Amino acid sequence: MFAQGLARTTQAYGDRIATIDGDKVQNWKEFGDRISRIAGGLRSIGCQSGDRIAILAATTPEHLATMYAVVWAGCVLVPLNTRLSPDELDHIVSQSESKALASDIRNLAGAESVMSTTKNALKTIAMDESAAGEVSLDELAKSASIDVWTAEMSDLFALYYTGGTTGLPKGVMVSDGAAGVQALNMIFDTGVTEKTNYLHAPPLFHLAGATVANACAFAGAAQTFLPEITPDAYTKTVVEKKVTFISMVPTMLVDMLEAPNADQAFQSVETFAYGTAPIPEALLRKVLDRCPDVKLVQIYGQSEVTGPATVLRPEHHTLSGPFTDKLASAGIPIMCHEVRIADEDGKTVANGTTGEVLIRGPGVMMGYWQQPELTAKTLKDGWLHTGDAGIMDGDGFIQIVDRLKDMIITGGENVFCGEVESVIAEHPDVSICTVIGLPDDKWGERVHAVVVLEKGAEMDFETLRDHCRKSIAGYKCPKSADFTTDPLPLSGVGKIRKDLLRKKYSN
Amino acid sequence: MFAQGLARTTQAYGDRIATIDGDKVQNWKEFGDRISRIAGGLRSIGCQSGDRIAILAATTPEHLATMYAVVWAGCVLVPLNTRLSPDELDHIVSQSESKALASDIRNLAGAESVMSTTKNALKTIAMDESAAGEVSLDELAKSASIDVWTAEMSDLFALYYTGGTTGLPKGVMVSDGAAGVQALNMIFDTGVTEKTNYLHAPPLFHLAGATVANACAFAGAAQTFLPEITPDAYTKTVVEKKVTFISMVPTMLVDMLEAPNADQAFQSVETFAYGTAPIPEALLRKVLDRCPDVKLVQIYGQSEVTGPATVLRPEHHTLSGPFTDKLASAGIPIMCHEVRIADEDGKTVANGTTGEVLIRGPGVMMGYWQQPELTAKTLKDGWLHTGDAGIMDGDGFIQIVDRLKDMIITGGENVFCGEVESVIAEHPDVSICTVIGLPDDKWGERVHAVVVLEKGAEMDFETLRDHCRKSIAGYKCPKSADFTTDPLPLSGVGKIRKDLLRKKYSN
Repeated sequence: MFAQGLARTTQAYGDRIATIDGDKVQNWKEFGDRISRIAGGLRSIGCQSGDRIAILAATTPEHLATMYAVVWAGCVLVPLNTRLSPDELDHIVSQSESKALASDIRNLAGAESVMSTTKNALKTIAMDESAAGEVSLDELAKSASIDVWTAEMSDLFALYYTGGTTGLPKGVMVSDGAAGVQALNMIFDTGVTEKTNYLHAPPLFHLAGATVANACAFAGAAQTFLPEITPDAYTKTVVEKKVTFISMVPTMLVDMLEAPNADQAFQSVETFAYGTAPIPEALLRKVLDRCPDVKLVQIYGQSEVTGPATVLRPEHHTLSGPFTDKLASAGIPIMCHEVRIADEDGKTVANGTTGEVLIRGPGVMMGYWQQPELTAKTLKDGWLHTGDAGIMDGDGFIQIVDRLKDMIITGGENVFCGEVESVIAEHPDVSICTVIGLPDDKWGERVHAVVVLEKGAEMDFETLRDHCRKSIAGYKCPKSADFTTDPLPLSGVGKIRKDLLRKKYSN
Repeated sequence: MFAQGLARTTQAYGDRIATIDGDKVQNWKEFGDRISRIAGGLRSIGCQSGDRIAILAATTPEHLATMYAVVWAGCVLVPLNTRLSPDELDHIVSQSESKALASDIRNLAGAESVMSTTKNALKTIAMDESAAGEVSLDELAKSASIDVWTAEMSDLFALYYTGGTTGLPKGVMVSDGAAGVQALNMIFDTGVTEKTNYLHAPPLFHLAGATVANACAFAGAAQTFLPEITPDAYTKTVVEKKVTFISMVPTMLVDMLEAPNADQAFQSVETFAYGTAPIPEALLRKVLDRCPDVKLVQIYGQSEVTGPATVLRPEHHTLSGPFTDKLASAGIPIMCHEVRIADEDGKTVANGTTGEVLIRGPGVMMGYWQQPELTAKTLKDGWLHTGDAGIMDGDGFIQIVDRLKDMIITGGENVFCGEVESVIAEHPDVSICTVIGLPDDKWGERVHAVVVLEKGAEMDFETLRDHCRKSIAGYKCPKSADFTTDPLPLSGVGKIRKDLLRKKYSN
């Protein structure tokens, strides 16, 4: 269904604006033409339906065109997180058996590294003039258009890699129907129409960014892009381009509201969507106070459900009336999805009781790519075991209270503690270590390391940080650390009591 | 995905009204509980997932509960048109190999006839006290709830039987994903939310009625039912129940607008959806003139695309501005669907040229049940060949100009001429005959017969009508006829020139 969504917009909304990037504006007829030609180009370099194609690029109109050309040709999208380390990128390209890699100049180092290390027979596509690649996107776009691919809803659409507790990202298999239905759900919950102008903030390689882009594409809405997301540039673009829809993680929202004349600047904005991390109730109240006419939509989700899992809808964002006690919740399940809270045996617990959040519905992944055992542990009878702990109230509203999986969400990114811990432990001066998330005004949570040093050893924070940076993406590296020679508190079964450490270091 | 849509509403909108039937009101918690118990009852009488279950009933809350219980249990819906003849009903129950038949008191004769003639080992369910059946719906509803079924989007969801040119209805195979996505599309185009109150008019056994009901169910909207649809009762109910959403065929719209104080009565109505037959532009202008604040939505569709195929959206219904020349069109393709106009070889024709309307997308049927040859003729490379003739303009708007298949749409029902002709031809006094649709103020089109009698024979209209009524549903029988001894005009290849006859008898 997904490719038909694109073809329909090209035809029915051809004269409407598709992308805005500074002074460069494309309508849907032009954008659709470019997509279908690049798709023809992909075919001409040997990419057949079902082939995986990796993209390593900033959030630009060309990235979007490449994404949709992959879909148009019936190939499988493999979006790469631009902040991953060379080893992680190589793992994904290799494990997905990607046939082609498209990359832009801003990710030259990562792309060149993959190209030098990969064992795949990789076709390489340069997305702009000085980027690495055997063939340029412009050359591909000189090909004749091809007819849009028609997938079955159960066909593989994309592999979204997500951080793994064992240190290697795992590929979430997203079906055509999952991507399509979640875009429709996003349209319903945010009210996107052909009159919408959306300003990108979450990166396109994330489902948080992609699902909103997809909703806009289906509805014939305009999408505005920024080379660098800074509060100043963002606010300026909202004003200049009369942006009507913005979406961001709470850390960005803080920056936006602190900008001078923020309330004046955001007058054209009709919808604010936020998510990825819990938002403090006080901040939400501040937003409602400043922008009473803006529709607020909170989305809680994860890659394994192809984006949104629950939604706190605009009518739930009120400071009076029946929903005032729902502001701290993540809302109700997204359309056509069931949520239940279960104990360790998968049995539904009573309302008000904490348990694991389970989700069932069309957005749930097909499984982890080539990891049947991990898939079997995560998907049971159609229920996705999210690894997040939550509580459901008597009205069916879900509150996310903690993460069962040992994971930190910092600035909208998932960091798995185990991955960081294993890197730190490699340092010869480290005896034992643990990584926890501490509350942080800017990042929501920050990565904090508690390091027990070898007897007589000494280490400072910079040394620890430099050591980590060699192996993992910058956002995964600790932002603060405590060094100690005391033993770490352990539970009865020998597990580190992270809850005690979080309490100790939060003050 | 469909059953998850119901389960989610039961949980997230439990306190909101599900159905209104006079003074009887059920909230979603009660309605969901009844659905899941009836589903348990279906299981207890031996209905397993995948089994076909036929329903022969008027449009009532109990019909809706039965429909959704079938879905909840993972069985396949077989809705029966209550106006079909006993032979047609028996054919459907038999050809679908239905395992159970649920029927209500208002369809007692049809149900008893099927029960006496069927060769299936049919479980029979009485939907109200005096209806025919081994077990009552109330008894089934005493069963324990079962967990909601989780279908794949590619699983068979329903068989919607539609009139066949050979005289026997054929079963349109609707998938779970098709039914789900089309309900989401209907939500998008009509703006249904949990605050909507929809008043039923098109019957639930039709996709025109079912798709709107499904949209309401997903969104947690209220559905109001009427025992008999008359303009007076309908208008009264709109006022009393503060109805916000109505949908009807144009023939009904005429009656509504002629009711006294119609403009006063419809003040609570926010959305009018219409379709199934073309609407005269003059009538549309009259509606816009009377109700300028109402959102008008025209849907063109057919069973083979699970309801909607194109939509003329509210913003297209204006008497000024860029869309004024679109009022006579059927609008743009529904979300995630492509439409093209093709010649006899399936090649796309130029804009402005008449050709066959072809549709591709997730709503397109899986095929005709157990009719692979007919399916292969109708579905080619994913494109549904609708049999309707249309023109696309340069903006992607589609105008339906004629039907390529020899079919009459009368009062929203499809009548295939060949079926009526073969019945008339059976009469010993008839030499040759043909059936055409003539324009009709009330019915849109009426079934008109042109009958060439045997030499010396005489026949009046009543005799013709009584003859037809013995074999086919009342709405298929001619509403007028001409008897002649002149030969019918023929084309060069010996086909009856219906176009000439339509011209001759239209005056």
